[in-house]
Amino acid sequence: EGKLIIFSVLSAKAIRDYIYTFVSRTNTCGELRSAHVGQKVTLYGWVQYQRQGLFLVLRDFHGLTQVIIPQDEVSGHSHVKELLSNAPVESVVRVTGTVSPRPLGQQNPKMPTGDIEVKAETAEILNSCKKLPFEIKDFIKKSEALRMQYRYLDLRSSRLQANLRLRSGVVMRMREYLCNLHGEGLLAGAKEFLVPSREAGKFYSLPQSPQQFKQLLMIGGLDRYFQVARCYRDEGSRPDRQPEFTQIDIEMSFVDQAGIQRLIEGLLQHSWPEDRGSIVTPFPSMTYEEALAEYGTDKPDTRFGMKIVDISDVLRGSNIHFVQNALSYPHGSIRAICIPQGMRYLTNKDLESLKESAKSQFNQCSALGALRLLSADLLEAAGLTLRDPTAFHFLWVVDFPLFLPKAENPTELESAHHPFTAPHPSDASLLYSDPTKVRSQHYDLVLNGNEVGGGSIRIHSAEQQRFVLEKVLKEDSEVLSHLIEALEFGAPPHGGIALGLDRLISLIVDAPSIRDVIAFPKSFRGRDLMGNAPDYVTPEELEPYHIQVSWPLEEKEAKKN
Amino acid sequence: EGKLIIFSVLSAKAIRDYIYTFVSRTNTCGELRSAHVGQKVTLYGWVQYQRQGLFLVLRDFHGLTQVIIPQDEVSGHSHVKELLSNAPVESVVRVTGTVSPRPLGQQNPKMPTGDIEVKAETAEILNSCKKLPFEIKDFIKKSEALRMQYRYLDLRSSRLQANLRLRSGVVMRMREYLCNLHGEGLLAGAKEFLVPSREAGKFYSLPQSPQQFKQLLMIGGLDRYFQVARCYRDEGSRPDRQPEFTQIDIEMSFVDQAGIQRLIEGLLQHSWPEDRGSIVTPFPSMTYEEALAEYGTDKPDTRFGMKIVDISDVLRGSNIHFVQNALSYPHGSIRAICIPQGMRYLTNKDLESLKESAKSQFNQCSALGALRLLSADLLEAAGLTLRDPTAFHFLWVVDFPLFLPKAENPTELESAHHPFTAPHPSDASLLYSDPTKVRSQHYDLVLNGNEVGGGSIRIHSAEQQRFVLEKVLKEDSEVLSHLIEALEFGAPPHGGIALGLDRLISLIVDAPSIRDVIAFPKSFRGRDLMGNAPDYVTPEELEPYHIQVSWPLEEKEAKKN
Repeated sequence: EGKLIIFSVLSAKAIRDYIYTFVSRTNTCGELRSAHVGQKVTLYGWVQYQRQGLFLVLRDFHGLTQVIIPQDEVSGHSHVKELLSNAPVESVVRVTGTVSPRPLGQQNPKMPTGDIEVKAETAEILNSCKKLPFEIKDFIKKSEALRMQYRYLDLRSSRLQANLRLRSGVVMRMREYLCNLHGEGLLAGAKEFLVPSREAGKFYSLPQSPQQFKQLLMIGGLDRYFQVARCYRDEGSRPDRQPEFTQIDIEMSFVDQAGIQRLIEGLLQHSWPEDRGSIVTPFPSMTYEEALAEYGTDKPDTRFGMKIVDISDVLRGSNIHFVQNALSYPHGSIRAICIPQGMRYLTNKDLESLKESAKSQFNQCSALGALRLLSADLLEAAGLTLRDPTAFHFLWVVDFPLFLPKAENPTELESAHHPFTAPHPSDASLLYSDPTKVRSQHYDLVLNGNEVGGGSIRIHSAEQQRFVLEKVLKEDSEVLSHLIEALEFGAPPHGGIALGLDRLISLIVDAPSIRDVIAFPKSFRGRDLMGNAPDYVTPEELEPYHIQVSWPLEEKEAKKN
Repeated sequence: EGKLIIFSVLSAKAIRDYIYTFVSRTNTCGELRSAHVGQKVTLYGWVQYQRQGLFLVLRDFHGLTQVIIPQDEVSGHSHVKELLSNAPVESVVRVTGTVSPRPLGQQNPKMPTGDIEVKAETAEILNSCKKLPFEIKDFIKKSEALRMQYRYLDLRSSRLQANLRLRSGVVMRMREYLCNLHGEGLLAGAKEFLVPSREAGKFYSLPQSPQQFKQLLMIGGLDRYFQVARCYRDEGSRPDRQPEFTQIDIEMSFVDQAGIQRLIEGLLQHSWPEDRGSIVTPFPSMTYEEALAEYGTDKPDTRFGMKIVDISDVLRGSNIHFVQNALSYPHGSIRAICIPQGMRYLTNKDLESLKESAKSQFNQCSALGALRLLSADLLEAAGLTLRDPTAFHFLWVVDFPLFLPKAENPTELESAHHPFTAPHPSDASLLYSDPTKVRSQHYDLVLNGNEVGGGSIRIHSAEQQRFVLEKVLKEDSEVLSHLIEALEFGAPPHGGIALGLDRLISLIVDAPSIRDVIAFPKSFRGRDLMGNAPDYVTPEELEPYHIQVSWPLEEKEAKKN
């Protein structure tokens, strides 16, 4: 009871056993050094390249080793020469031979195994490779569609291998940090992606996030929960979104906003890859109001300045007509960003594109935020470095409004995040008098201008939850009756957070897309170009699920009649 | 490159920080001892029970603590008394007070905190609990449906809390053992559960297992992969199956059957809960043929004997008519099991039920296997212990047939497991001459008569894979063309295994159902009785997915016309 799990450290022997005992190789391709000279070794790997029947470079997940093809007439050697000289690039081979020092002057200091080579004695082609659709080299440009179609070849690139290796390491260290928690094992909940069941007309839905279930776990007395949760979200054709994604999902009882924030800071510090520098905690914090006023966005990139400033007072005495006009409105103001060295770096064409951007967002409060980012892009394109890609600026954004006016009908309110978010303690009474003024206990974690996480302290009072749903949001609370009922059975105060793992990892490795940190991503349009999903199914396959396809054409014809 | 991840050990301080810093309590309810006497503490927890306004027992995830309700007239104390005396059972309260030794003779040695009590000074009811639908005590019987409907209350039981705690610990230790591997991040594949997409007529499918994707990862040069994978399987109304389940999924390149087996033995030894005794490795191994001959099943419970013996030779000289008749068939034989102490323990009624069971399975080869288990049940019901519930007998079953005759048409063959399984090296040539005789490189892991895992060395030759699909199974290989094509690009020899985590954990904790080791399971019939899934959706919600429900009644009417 209450015993902590202390991580056992695997012995060096156990680790060696783990890597070698279970497979038939004696060493990996990344391992041999001068100390191994004279040893007989068996390597397995792919033919990276081969030169004139003299040598080849063998590659596996762990590195590269140079293999010398025998040229003498010793028995069996001509067979080995024949095999290795003719093995197509990317074929899989087994090579047994002796580790030898490379001749003087031929060492390669850039290659970890560059001091040695393996003199092949026997060899076997385990699988020959047919002509590749593209060369597996990072610098070779290939279309995204082709890369997706042959994802298993793309995965052999050193860049993707490094990305997935880093992802695995970060997640493991996150688990180490979190593993005193308990409560794996849940799934399902939320809305979207429907799954037809065998009961006519009844559907499951795939979890957008385990929001309700993690709250129910707290009500179930589990105290703390974390999960690396696979979630599903149907965002239609929104680009660079994945219909399935991964989040580090956390929930705790008896916790406040600061507690969750300190936990996440500790978690990220513990799991941060060593070679990406260290991160400083606690992370700075900014209110939603400040973020909008100074950066024109709720996810400010704080790696550079160029903040928005209010110059209304400076201009109040001016007699410029449009300025006076703007200031005559209630809450009317004149705001600006100062672009240092703009005169020097921005061309007339740049200024034109800034004007265009401003015009296209006329009257939108986010216009200056977008202008700020566009200015940074333009300055960087002109050679100035504003945003250090190796710098990681984390930021908490807090004190979001609890409710926002609905876009389609501003007299009605909707939740700024979700209806389970608790009001800010100082604003709790406003909930009943002026809900539009209530700030929430929601917090976002922002990294270099990207939202990488978000969470909140939840409502734990059934009465308050019912009030929010019925009186403020005017929603039918019946759908959530099981959650509200659960709150009545001694729900503890609780809160949580979810980190978007795919986005976080892609920022750490500076990948242009989250598809570069997912082994088998879906394409831009949610398609699996390799396995060809989604795909047609036969009416017979749909029968047990009591559904049929409504073909758009048929619909049109039906309407005609 | 090739660097090993060594698990960092969290310092005691970090662990303390982790448990306490993020929340407002000073201690958990499982922690206070005599050494804490005199300290002022703040505890959060649920009211386990309360006695006559004198004391109450507070419970959290970590344990129980006795709280003394103040009876004196000190300022504020009467308010605390009022609060705590009237807090309904299972309400959530905060109590601040001083740790005191229990009076002599009132210590409770069965309770880890039984030497102390906390004298309450201030208290707050954080959430009151309404009348419970059932008492949260393990010994109180309640219906499975009620437990599922109020799963969050059921989760507060010490049994479920212990199960989930153990599950979390085992999985964490499995990850420690496996974490030198790389390649999280995949999902999708396989068949079953359809997910309609926004493209008319096109469906995704949820993964039954990541089989194809893990093979593609090996072809992608990832070398080793493991995942705690959530899988989905629509098994209609098969009882005690979950539409979603969890497996420990592993795949390795350049590995053979023995390599995978040693890995799994090491994994289970490393992650085995300390308090369940140790397990001995290597696990014994048995061929499929031996298993069927001696135990009448391919998943023998080896905790007890009563093996099937062939007594044909003994009886060949007899003149019993039905014996001679049986022996006159080709491969005809007489087999028996000997039930030690059967004469003493089995009643006439028992013998009658054995006869009934034998009759109902007449002519089925598994009949004796079932009789053996039924005999064990009967002997144990009579008081004999045959199968020690604390004993764990692991067993590898190997050398399965690669193909089996189809039930509906025995002249055609189907894969005994799946079409990617490699033939046994000794039988590879039989593949082309007599496929029915080919044994496979499939292996099952059996624990106490339950299949807890299975895997195989996979076919890595495109040619052999195509032959199996087209010539032996007469299947359309087009559906799997992307996998076969991938095999042509230098696929390494590879193999893997998947362990059924839910079943494994339920056997370790001796739970009657896997529902006892899953936080939010579906019911017998695949329903979520708390969230009410699957549920009806409106035609409008189906519209973006271009599907409509075929109501069974409408179908009938359509047929009439």
